[in-house]
Amino acid sequence: MMLQSVETGCVVGADIGGTNLRLALAGMDGKILFRWKVSTTGIRDPHIVVGLIHEGVEDLLRQSGLPRGLLRAVAVGAPGVTDVDAGVVIATSYLMGWRDVPLRDLLEARLGVPAAVDNDVNMAAIAESQMGTAEGTRDFVFIAIGTGIGAGIVLNGRLFHGMNWSAGEIGYMLVPGTKVEPREIGEPGALEGIVGGEGIRAQWQSLWREEVTPLPRDLVATQIFDHALAGDSLAQTILNRCAQTLAFAIYNLSVVLNCPLFVLGGSIGMHPALWKTTQEIVAQRDKRVQPTLVRSTLGPDAQVIGAIRLALETAGSRVLRGNNIPMRVP
Amino acid sequence: MMLQSVETGCVVGADIGGTNLRLALAGMDGKILFRWKVSTTGIRDPHIVVGLIHEGVEDLLRQSGLPRGLLRAVAVGAPGVTDVDAGVVIATSYLMGWRDVPLRDLLEARLGVPAAVDNDVNMAAIAESQMGTAEGTRDFVFIAIGTGIGAGIVLNGRLFHGMNWSAGEIGYMLVPGTKVEPREIGEPGALEGIVGGEGIRAQWQSLWREEVTPLPRDLVATQIFDHALAGDSLAQTILNRCAQTLAFAIYNLSVVLNCPLFVLGGSIGMHPALWKTTQEIVAQRDKRVQPTLVRSTLGPDAQVIGAIRLALETAGSRVLRGNNIPMRVP
Repeated sequence: MMLQSVETGCVVGADIGGTNLRLALAGMDGKILFRWKVSTTGIRDPHIVVGLIHEGVEDLLRQSGLPRGLLRAVAVGAPGVTDVDAGVVIATSYLMGWRDVPLRDLLEARLGVPAAVDNDVNMAAIAESQMGTAEGTRDFVFIAIGTGIGAGIVLNGRLFHGMNWSAGEIGYMLVPGTKVEPREIGEPGALEGIVGGEGIRAQWQSLWREEVTPLPRDLVATQIFDHALAGDSLAQTILNRCAQTLAFAIYNLSVVLNCPLFVLGGSIGMHPALWKTTQEIVAQRDKRVQPTLVRSTLGPDAQVIGAIRLALETAGSRVLRGNNIPMRVP
Repeated sequence: MMLQSVETGCVVGADIGGTNLRLALAGMDGKILFRWKVSTTGIRDPHIVVGLIHEGVEDLLRQSGLPRGLLRAVAVGAPGVTDVDAGVVIATSYLMGWRDVPLRDLLEARLGVPAAVDNDVNMAAIAESQMGTAEGTRDFVFIAIGTGIGAGIVLNGRLFHGMNWSAGEIGYMLVPGTKVEPREIGEPGALEGIVGGEGIRAQWQSLWREEVTPLPRDLVATQIFDHALAGDSLAQTILNRCAQTLAFAIYNLSVVLNCPLFVLGGSIGMHPALWKTTQEIVAQRDKRVQPTLVRSTLGPDAQVIGAIRLALETAGSRVLRGNNIPMRVP
C-alpha cells in the first residue's frame, strides 16, 4: 500500500518551531508515511536549521527505503513574516532573530529539490482549509494561540497574505481591556499581553497570593485553564478575562471580514475551557454577528500537513532554480 | 466635445443618501456631463425612491438632449448591505428600514436598461481606487464617517464583499474606550458611538456646561471639530477622544489586513482636524505599523463617480434581464 502512493514520488513538509523542528514524508496523495523530530531549543542560525532539515530529510528517505530521486519537493513553515514569492523569511520574533533569510534558496541548494516556504500559521490554515475543520469554507480565520498569537486568513478560498506578507498579525490588536500605550519594537502585542501564553502566566503571577489560591505560583497557561475547569476561582478570573478579550478580537474580525468561521489552534487556543468560554461570550455579543468557533481537528499536525500540501503544489508547478543567493543575516 | 463622448452612449450613476438622492449622467469615457439632485428626507418606500431615480434619469436625458436609446446602463449605490450578484439590498439602517429589496430588478423594470447595485461606501471605494487618492494602490480601506461609519475594503485591487456582503462594517468594532455591553439590534455600533456624527453630538451634549464653554449646546460634529481647531478646549477633548478611538480602529485594520493606506471620506471623516489628529496618533503608535492616512480627493462626489464606474462596467458586460421579481418588504 505504501509503495503504491510513493511510486511516482514523495514530498517532505517541515515546521520550524521554537521548541521542535518537525518533518513528515508523504506520498503524492498527501498521506503522511514517516515522521521525524528534533529539538531546536537554543538554535538560531538559519544554516544550522537548514542542516537539521537536511538531516531529517535523509533520515525520512532512509526510513522509507525510497531512492533520493523520488523526492519531488520540500516545503517549510517558518515562524515569522514570510515573502512566499521570493522564498524569504523577512522577520521572526526576537527568539529566532531572523531578518531576510532566503530560506527557499538555502533549502534548494542543500537538498537539490524545489522548495517553498510560508509562515507557519498560514501553513496550518491551509491544512485546516483542505482537510481540517474548515474544509469547504470559503472565508475563515485560523487563530493560533501559543506563546504568541497569529492568524491565517483565508478569503475566497485562498490565503490572504497582505501587501508586505504580514496580514493576520492579530496579536497586536487593541480591544477593550488591552494596553493602549504605544508599542515598542520587540514587545509582545496588546492582545498577546492578555491572551498569549506569557501574558496568561504573567497575569496569574501578578494576582497570585497564598490566601487566594492553594495552587503554586508557577503555572503555565494550559495548567491555569485546567485549574479553572476544576473550579479554582483565581484561575477562572484569568480564564474569563482571556476569553472576553479573545471574544472582542474575534468579533472585530467577524465584522470587518464578514467571516463566519474561526478555527482555534495552538496549545492554548485548543484548550477546551478557553474555547467554550469564548464561544459563549461571542454568542451573547450581537444577534446579527454570530460567527462559529471551533477547535482545530488537526492540532499540532496542522503546520506539517499544510507544508505537505504546499510541497505537493510545488512539485506540480515548480522546477528547481539552482541559484544560491547569499544570505543576509544582520 | 460633449457629443464625442456620448456618441456611443451614456450611463447614469446614482447615490441614495439619507438626505439626498444624487444622480449624474456621464459619457462612455466616464466624464460627468450633467447632475441632478432631490431631497430624500422622510422618504423610505423603495418604490418611491425608484420613481425618483426614474424622474432624475429622464431629467438628465432632457438636459443632455440625448435620445433615450443611448442610455446604456444605470448603477445605484444603496445605504446598506447589498448582494451585488442578486441585485438585492439586504438591509439598511433603521432610517430607511429596507429588507431584501430587489433594487436592480425594480430599476431595470422601470428604466428598461441594465442596472447594477452595490453598497454606497463600496461605490466610493471603487471611485477612490480608480481615479481618486488610492489610484494604483492594491490594498486599501476607504472609511466613510458621517452619521454612521462604514468601510469599503479593496484587496488585491478588488472590492472585498465578504461571505454575506457585509464586510467592512467597522462601525461595530470594539477598541479601548468603546462600550463593551452586548449590542441590541438597531443600536449604533460601539465605534460609531464615539466616532460617528450622532455619537460626537451626544458626547458634546453630555459634557457641555455653560461654565466650560461659551459655545451653544446644540452643535453638529463638524461644527464641534471647527471649534476644536479654533481653540475651544471642550471641543478639543471630544476631538481627541474621537481621533484616538479612530486611530485604534485603523491600527487594528492595518495589522489584520497588512494594509498601507486608509482614505477618509464622509463629512466627518474629511474634516481636517480629525484627519490630522488621527494621523498623528497612528504615527506614534507602533514604528513597525505605519499606515498612511489621506482624505478623499473626490469628497461627496465619490459615491456617484463609483456608481458611474459600475454602470460603465455593467454596460460593457450585461444585457437587460427584463424579469420583474415582486419585492418583499416586511
